[in-house]
Amino acid sequence: MSEAAQTLDGWYALHDFRTIDWTAWKAASPEERETARQELLGLIADWRETESRKEGSLAVYAIVGQKADFVFMHLRETLEELNAIENAFNRSAFAKFAKPEYSYVSIVELSSYLAPAGSDPMQIPEVAARLKPILPQSKHICFYPMNKRRLLDDNWYMLSMDERKAFMRSHGMIGRNYAGKVKQIITGSVGFDDWEWGVTLFADEALQFKKLVYEMRFDEASARFGEFGPFYVGNLLTADGFADLLRI
Amino acid sequence: MSEAAQTLDGWYALHDFRTIDWTAWKAASPEERETARQELLGLIADWRETESRKEGSLAVYAIVGQKADFVFMHLRETLEELNAIENAFNRSAFAKFAKPEYSYVSIVELSSYLAPAGSDPMQIPEVAARLKPILPQSKHICFYPMNKRRLLDDNWYMLSMDERKAFMRSHGMIGRNYAGKVKQIITGSVGFDDWEWGVTLFADEALQFKKLVYEMRFDEASARFGEFGPFYVGNLLTADGFADLLRI
Amino acid sequence: MSEAAQTLDGWYALHDFRTIDWTAWKAASPEERETARQELLGLIADWRETESRKEGSLAVYAIVGQKADFVFMHLRETLEELNAIENAFNRSAFAKFAKPEYSYVSIVELSSYLAPAGSDPMQIPEVAARLKPILPQSKHICFYPMNKRRLLDDNWYMLSMDERKAFMRSHGMIGRNYAGKVKQIITGSVGFDDWEWGVTLFADEALQFKKLVYEMRFDEASARFGEFGPFYVGNLLTADGFADLLRI
Amino acid sequence: MSEAAQTLDGWYALHDFRTIDWTAWKAASPEERETARQELLGLIADWRETESRKEGSLAVYAIVGQKADFVFMHLRETLEELNAIENAFNRSAFAKFAKPEYSYVSIVELSSYLAPAGSDPMQIPEVAARLKPILPQSKHICFYPMNKRRLLDDNWYMLSMDERKAFMRSHGMIGRNYAGKVKQIITGSVGFDDWEWGVTLFADEALQFKKLVYEMRFDEASARFGEFGPFYVGNLLTADGFADLLRI
Amino acid sequence: MSEAAQTLDGWYALHDFRTIDWTAWKAASPEERETARQELLGLIADWRETESRKEGSLAVYAIVGQKADFVFMHLRETLEELNAIENAFNRSAFAKFAKPEYSYVSIVELSSYLAPAGSDPMQIPEVAARLKPILPQSKHICFYPMNKRRLLDDNWYMLSMDERKAFMRSHGMIGRNYAGKVKQIITGSVGFDDWEWGVTLFADEALQFKKLVYEMRFDEASARFGEFGPFYVGNLLTADGFADLLRI
Repeated sequence: MSEAAQTLDGWYALHDFRTIDWTAWKAASPEERETARQELLGLIADWRETESRKEGSLAVYAIVGQKADFVFMHLRETLEELNAIENAFNRSAFAKFAKPEYSYVSIVELSSYLAPAGSDPMQIPEVAARLKPILPQSKHICFYPMNKRRLLDDNWYMLSMDERKAFMRSHGMIGRNYAGKVKQIITGSVGFDDWEWGVTLFADEALQFKKLVYEMRFDEASARFGEFGPFYVGNLLTADGFADLLRI
Repeated sequence: MSEAAQTLDGWYALHDFRTIDWTAWKAASPEERETARQELLGLIADWRETESRKEGSLAVYAIVGQKADFVFMHLRETLEELNAIENAFNRSAFAKFAKPEYSYVSIVELSSYLAPAGSDPMQIPEVAARLKPILPQSKHICFYPMNKRRLLDDNWYMLSMDERKAFMRSHGMIGRNYAGKVKQIITGSVGFDDWEWGVTLFADEALQFKKLVYEMRFDEASARFGEFGPFYVGNLLTADGFADLLRI
Repeated sequence: MSEAAQTLDGWYALHDFRTIDWTAWKAASPEERETARQELLGLIADWRETESRKEGSLAVYAIVGQKADFVFMHLRETLEELNAIENAFNRSAFAKFAKPEYSYVSIVELSSYLAPAGSDPMQIPEVAARLKPILPQSKHICFYPMNKRRLLDDNWYMLSMDERKAFMRSHGMIGRNYAGKVKQIITGSVGFDDWEWGVTLFADEALQFKKLVYEMRFDEASARFGEFGPFYVGNLLTADGFADLLRI
Repeated sequence: MSEAAQTLDGWYALHDFRTIDWTAWKAASPEERETARQELLGLIADWRETESRKEGSLAVYAIVGQKADFVFMHLRETLEELNAIENAFNRSAFAKFAKPEYSYVSIVELSSYLAPAGSDPMQIPEVAARLKPILPQSKHICFYPMNKRRLLDDNWYMLSMDERKAFMRSHGMIGRNYAGKVKQIITGSVGFDDWEWGVTLFADEALQFKKLVYEMRFDEASARFGEFGPFYVGNLLTADGFADLLRI
Repeated sequence: MSEAAQTLDGWYALHDFRTIDWTAWKAASPEERETARQELLGLIADWRETESRKEGSLAVYAIVGQKADFVFMHLRETLEELNAIENAFNRSAFAKFAKPEYSYVSIVELSSYLAPAGSDPMQIPEVAARLKPILPQSKHICFYPMNKRRLLDDNWYMLSMDERKAFMRSHGMIGRNYAGKVKQIITGSVGFDDWEWGVTLFADEALQFKKLVYEMRFDEASARFGEFGPFYVGNLLTADGFADLLRI
């Protein structure tokens, strides 16, 4: 039996991807659309207020392509709060026009692979803050879920702790080259959703997502052991931008 | 030919995941909604009565994310009773608003891998009770189906009984570390549904699901031989909570 | 090139899994429901008459879980007769309430692996009868499609005839232990549907399905070479039971 | 780099599988049904006329099971003509009742594996005719798409030309045993659709499909290198038969 | 760790595959159809104007088979512009009749594998122009997404830069034989969509797609390392042709 990695865990995350039912939206009366728009803006305002109290965070992005029209990424202290957010949305007048496409349940996670032996990661200054982050307002988002492979000779979970540490250190060094260009939030989802991790990237230049993920793919940790789910890429959607989007 | 493992089998299980059709629910008349809500509460009350007679059990949880809105986990002595439950639900006024999303048919199972050789497991005090369990009212549920892998050199079913026993013993020891934190119900589904087992976990702290499943993944029994289906995670939904959820 | 196995082939089979559209059923007028119910019972009566003439056979079971509400398993001499059954059903007033979920096209098959060398299987008394069987009215059904694997070193079709014979003999001996408990009908579907075989099991005790399939999984013929599709399990549905089910 | 095989290419093929929306069909007025039926028969008559001019060909079969109700297999000189056929069908009054289920785009192909070295296949008498075939009116059809596998040691495209030739020769000899019983049309779809080839078989006795495909599966070319998609099997549907089918 | 390949990146690409809802289209009033048609032609005219300013490009093709009825391939400087195109389309009166089927987000890419060592690819005359290409009006299009495989011994990302260069050089030489017959646009999608690259081919003779892709499949770069997604093939659809298509 291989030694299990330790993680530090912070806020729970819900990525909620949805598509606007434009046919229904256009067929609705101006009053119904106005009510729906106001309820949507009201929910976003509530969520921002929670964020201002540092009890959670929110990112809203328009998704490019047919996979979804937009994503809400919510962070909260508990699964119950995430569920309450879903219910509030479903009850709102806007829900009827926002069909579910994909969602992901996970928890903000820091792995201890990179921590110096013997140290207590919670003593490292930024750690606590990174576990309960206020999401950035970068121009672009990229989300994808992933696994570490368990396939015959390429079995991550059969490696020794030292091997995994070495792989993750090299992996982390690539990430460091993108400091200031790409902000990365890793969320763990073992036991919560269908993949082992979610990766959410934020950047002002979308091309940096491709550069980072492609460079990492040549790293043995990804080349031999990374398995990737669907990729979503999007553009920042402010509350005003959302209201504009819905104007017809 | 490898020696087959023996199992003890108890109540049949039906996990019934459903999503509320909120658009239809909001479009229904207050009377129709009230009838539907009352019929739903009536069914839950009936199922609780069966439970109080120790002829079955019920767990009701709200699912987080878009995979489903809630799950009923039913335990009964026979498949006929499970089918009767489905039919009663489908006939109820609430069924129209509760679209099927996923279901799982299995039977509560105890494996004999961990039993001391020569012993009769039925003589072990808790065994009979564990085969027909009253489901806990923990704050959280986690469900996932799984297989033991049969892939070239990683073929569980080609291992000797002794090898499998050793793997399962080590596996079981991890589980023991979570005693009091996570209650685990294993249900066998070979011949009943698409995976070989269902795993249902109950815990008051959802993070324990991730800790347990992640730690086990480094165990050779999981690392080399575990194949996992979709994961569902949820929050306890009392009858009052369900009635509240449906208030609009 | 490996020597191909010979088969004996009997009646064609159509497994027709369907789900009742309960919302439409409840919304229909009592007259429409009565017409639909009568036409359904009429079809079943016709099919039973064909069976009584030994020109085909029928099994009707309620399926447990969300995969389907019921299955018709039809046996007939030709594909044209199976197609005519489909068309008669589709034209009936009940079809509107019975949405297609899954179907399987195959032909009752006996393999010659187990026949003594030099013998003519058609001379074995029960063979002809087993190729055109009257389906039992057991309390439970189990259906799943399967392949023999062709994966690198685990390639069934690259084994010699003698190796395959040895594997199938050991496999068959497990089945023999369930004689009187489980009746098994193997149907071949190479060239007809997406898997190579369909397996339909009948038993009065559903737990025997699990015991049989699980025990076989440790047999090398299944452990290394079996690939399994979806599993369906159900309860006998008599014509009266069906009529009852539709009463609201 | 392995030497690429040469092919001869003839007419483009479109397999167009569709399901009748029986609920809509029965709900339509007799006039609407009559118009739709006449337009369908008109299209079939047009296509037969093209066939009589040897500018294309058509096969129409009823599909057994829920995968589809019928298939049109069209052959034409160009992709533009196939597209025009789709558009004419979509514009017809019958299209509303014939939901798309599956389609396949390919081109009639003869491989040069079996040609004697040094010969020009176009000089072989039947070759030109086989590239632009008039489809038979056999009682049954079987269609499936397939790939040649590229999996580690079982990689068809890494074999030498001589190895591939030897495999295909043995493969072809099985086919020859079915001459007069099964007519086979191979269509290439690399660059056109999701698999590398489509295989369309015609026979008066459907059991011959199973015998042929099963026997070939033991041939190394299939056993190690064949990957198969969905299988469709059907019965001849004459224009009169189609009109009958639609009578309610 | 293997040395990562460098790429040059140009315009972002959105492939937008859609199917016409013919039933809704035929049920619409002539006025509604005329408005929808005019808005569609207006959008296409706007997109062509952008193209004439060299700020983007557009290709419009009818897709053969049921996968889609047409594709818009858009090129733009930013993801925001691509998103604005989607929103403009969704708001148009035609969107209601054009259901989404598949989309792909990527960026025009040139790899440096083939560049002479030490040279600056941007100094090569055609490079800049190839990164922001005006799409051709060839008679046919072919699109498919692809990955480089990472499977045990066939792991592209574990090869040395020199090995990859040699593979790509041989691969490129096949492409060169099709110069003048097939124009190829490679778009990178790591971090943007579910596969690593999109390949879009243009040709006046559709058969050249098959010849090129099939010949390449025997090349080790494809034979061992290519994994291919769905293939779409289509015919040029001019604005006039589109207007004709919608005439009923």
